[in-house]
Amino acid sequence: MIDLNADLGEGFGRWELTDDERLLSVVTSANVACGFHAGDAATMRRVCELAAERGVRIGAQVSYRDLAGFGRRAMDVPPAELAAEVAYQIGALEVFARAAGTRVSYVKPHGALYNRVVHDEGQAGAVVDGVRLADASLPVLGLPGSRLLEVAEKAGLPVVTEAFADRAYTEEGTLVPRGEDGAVVTDPDAVVERSVNLARLGVVDAHSGRRIPVRARSLCLHGDTPGAVELARRVRSRLEASGVRVAAFA
Amino acid sequence: MIDLNADLGEGFGRWELTDDERLLSVVTSANVACGFHAGDAATMRRVCELAAERGVRIGAQVSYRDLAGFGRRAMDVPPAELAAEVAYQIGALEVFARAAGTRVSYVKPHGALYNRVVHDEGQAGAVVDGVRLADASLPVLGLPGSRLLEVAEKAGLPVVTEAFADRAYTEEGTLVPRGEDGAVVTDPDAVVERSVNLARLGVVDAHSGRRIPVRARSLCLHGDTPGAVELARRVRSRLEASGVRVAAFA
Amino acid sequence: MIDLNADLGEGFGRWELTDDERLLSVVTSANVACGFHAGDAATMRRVCELAAERGVRIGAQVSYRDLAGFGRRAMDVPPAELAAEVAYQIGALEVFARAAGTRVSYVKPHGALYNRVVHDEGQAGAVVDGVRLADASLPVLGLPGSRLLEVAEKAGLPVVTEAFADRAYTEEGTLVPRGEDGAVVTDPDAVVERSVNLARLGVVDAHSGRRIPVRARSLCLHGDTPGAVELARRVRSRLEASGVRVAAFA
Amino acid sequence: MIDLNADLGEGFGRWELTDDERLLSVVTSANVACGFHAGDAATMRRVCELAAERGVRIGAQVSYRDLAGFGRRAMDVPPAELAAEVAYQIGALEVFARAAGTRVSYVKPHGALYNRVVHDEGQAGAVVDGVRLADASLPVLGLPGSRLLEVAEKAGLPVVTEAFADRAYTEEGTLVPRGEDGAVVTDPDAVVERSVNLARLGVVDAHSGRRIPVRARSLCLHGDTPGAVELARRVRSRLEASGVRVAAFA
Repeated sequence: MIDLNADLGEGFGRWELTDDERLLSVVTSANVACGFHAGDAATMRRVCELAAERGVRIGAQVSYRDLAGFGRRAMDVPPAELAAEVAYQIGALEVFARAAGTRVSYVKPHGALYNRVVHDEGQAGAVVDGVRLADASLPVLGLPGSRLLEVAEKAGLPVVTEAFADRAYTEEGTLVPRGEDGAVVTDPDAVVERSVNLARLGVVDAHSGRRIPVRARSLCLHGDTPGAVELARRVRSRLEASGVRVAAFA
Repeated sequence: MIDLNADLGEGFGRWELTDDERLLSVVTSANVACGFHAGDAATMRRVCELAAERGVRIGAQVSYRDLAGFGRRAMDVPPAELAAEVAYQIGALEVFARAAGTRVSYVKPHGALYNRVVHDEGQAGAVVDGVRLADASLPVLGLPGSRLLEVAEKAGLPVVTEAFADRAYTEEGTLVPRGEDGAVVTDPDAVVERSVNLARLGVVDAHSGRRIPVRARSLCLHGDTPGAVELARRVRSRLEASGVRVAAFA
Repeated sequence: MIDLNADLGEGFGRWELTDDERLLSVVTSANVACGFHAGDAATMRRVCELAAERGVRIGAQVSYRDLAGFGRRAMDVPPAELAAEVAYQIGALEVFARAAGTRVSYVKPHGALYNRVVHDEGQAGAVVDGVRLADASLPVLGLPGSRLLEVAEKAGLPVVTEAFADRAYTEEGTLVPRGEDGAVVTDPDAVVERSVNLARLGVVDAHSGRRIPVRARSLCLHGDTPGAVELARRVRSRLEASGVRVAAFA
Repeated sequence: MIDLNADLGEGFGRWELTDDERLLSVVTSANVACGFHAGDAATMRRVCELAAERGVRIGAQVSYRDLAGFGRRAMDVPPAELAAEVAYQIGALEVFARAAGTRVSYVKPHGALYNRVVHDEGQAGAVVDGVRLADASLPVLGLPGSRLLEVAEKAGLPVVTEAFADRAYTEEGTLVPRGEDGAVVTDPDAVVERSVNLARLGVVDAHSGRRIPVRARSLCLHGDTPGAVELARRVRSRLEASGVRVAAFA
């Protein structure tokens, strides 16, 4: 059994980015942008309505406050401010989830914040504080082995691990940084095969060629590039054809 | 019996404006800025904690998205966007109210939005839609006779009327526009006396000198000018000395 | 002889909108977004470089400060603030125009500001004041008969009139408002034919069918819809085939 | 001979911070906020007018784009973006300096950017690129020994060194970080004495008590705390009484 998550609602006002409608027919969990890196209020409302209609779980994709940088620039936000900003974003999204008859049911950091809380315990703690301010029963979605999941677990929050079928892994099970050669797996067939290996066997072929174990309850799919939705569909079909049940985590 | 409300938390990041701590020792209802005209997340959190400690009711002071103009510039926001933005702000504040052990218990528009929904039915309807998206039982605080309160009442929302002891009134019971001569009552003694008249007798001396009826369940005090908190204290003392019970509306 | 202008550089950070590179191979004047409704600094720089390489004239497309609304929501900005904001935008763009070896050589208001200064003398005056603050010799591009061009002319600024081949006109020569039926001419052949009539004969067929005179030194083309660049190319080809010289205004 | 510089125009819209009018009667160089960490367009215009009237030199105080954090949070902005943002800010300010009959005549980074370019060569290079985009003859104001001044000098820009009379120094001549004990000198008499030592002798008593050489063409005064302007006045009086000529750098 595997969950499929993707970033949604990442337009802002006049600008569109993610093909929300089509992605929602593929994924089981929607990481909805909450206005700090993308996602105006009207878009958040619409994505929540569409997700609720399709039975897709809604998660708060929280970010540094940085529209100009799409949340991709690391920022030294003091922990107390960051915690409050995380809670603010979750609360804003919760209104639209409830109005659509459901709830925000997990939290996933975005972009630079996601990368930072892999290693930075202070910022990871701030994210966890923010989640607990909003709702101390909310699961946190992140990389296995990250400081974020460690701190969240210690604080009593449920944690959900995820993997990336289109990203290269080191032998230690961490992601090859985006700048480096081969960091992104661009061959669609390879992505599909890696998805099946991750979901069925809990393994991935590392950059070096060696097969390593990667524990993941969810696979992250991308929806902001040409062909991305089509690829996401193929991944889901092949997973189901391989006997994997695609469903939101409990 | 009268409620005293004031705008709070109207700083942003490095900038401070309202003397939140002292105001919270005077008022019974706090209109907390929600980030669109003022009010960063950390400030919202702190104001909610202070208000909860002192038993002051928390309201969402919702605004057009306009930090540069402090929400004082009328904007033609399409109703669906405005409704979503109102709901977004309420939801964001709700997180901090709940974390402080209480709830957002009313909504009051700020600045240009406040003025606009006195007359503009479309924008008034959008505010009401936003409130209902967030919580269909939330009272709306506004001017008696305003489109906002009419539309809110029709939609089944509780409404709460307010008056301004430091603003001049026309004989029709509307506020003299801020630009005009004598629009603001600056003599502290006059403000105190008008407060008592409003609370005890439900009347105010209009600009013309004629005494007119003004129905108000709450008085709005201002906290962003020098001497404002001191004046607010005097108003409260005189109200209590005159036998008026100062308490949040039910 | 006719000038062709279009809005460019209307992305922001991660978001793209206008196909700047291809549009710059068609138009003779580029209305470059200056950061208030769209247009981050890096995009402004790149568009200026591309425009300078191709000999396309650079204009400052100034807007209300409203990224969330793409500058399409009318705002009551006090004239002194608006004038300063207009000057700020022109100055910011001027840096990149100069760095590319050229200059900002005209100013055109965007979106809600464009519409407002057709009728609103106060806001028109503020725009003109802003232009003069920046450079009292800068031409202003706008609708013939607009308050903007009247005020600009009175203030001694050069003015340049423009027309829209893809917008319906009333018999009085004003644009049919966007909300109304038939406001936008969607048939590409009609747009091409209207362009030629505007450029060669100075006439357009009004909504009612009656042919009316429209004086225009520039035609505004749109680049933010599918097929727009292709249509812009056809317009230019047909203009040139009809003996019209396509060139920036002097 | 010494220059006195201070940060000015650091309000934003409704919020005020620096006492611009009084500071301008003390300093010889005004670091004017350009809208990215503070400083709306109308404020920039007014400060430039006041500075020009008083013969105070205008500098662009450039910052990361971070109103919520007042530019005090380090951000990993890619160099090409940062360079463009620096140029954008200088250009915007230049409009108001010229309108007031003068010019932007130096650039000083603000807050987190200031601290970062002491050590970070990449970001220092981006700031220098931004300055050169705007005007390759503009001096850069910064800490002696900083990467910023090194890179600027290599790029052919004039550089101006500054010192802080109210900050503790290590024996190596660097500032004791703000978080640490005794980082800020709060005794006004000590600040005045240190100012005279810096200006007359080019020395300061380091944290350890040892007197060290500090080369500085300008002293940075602060204007955003109570009593700051009064202290700035005392510093200037004592400098002049000690025979130091207070004048903008050439």
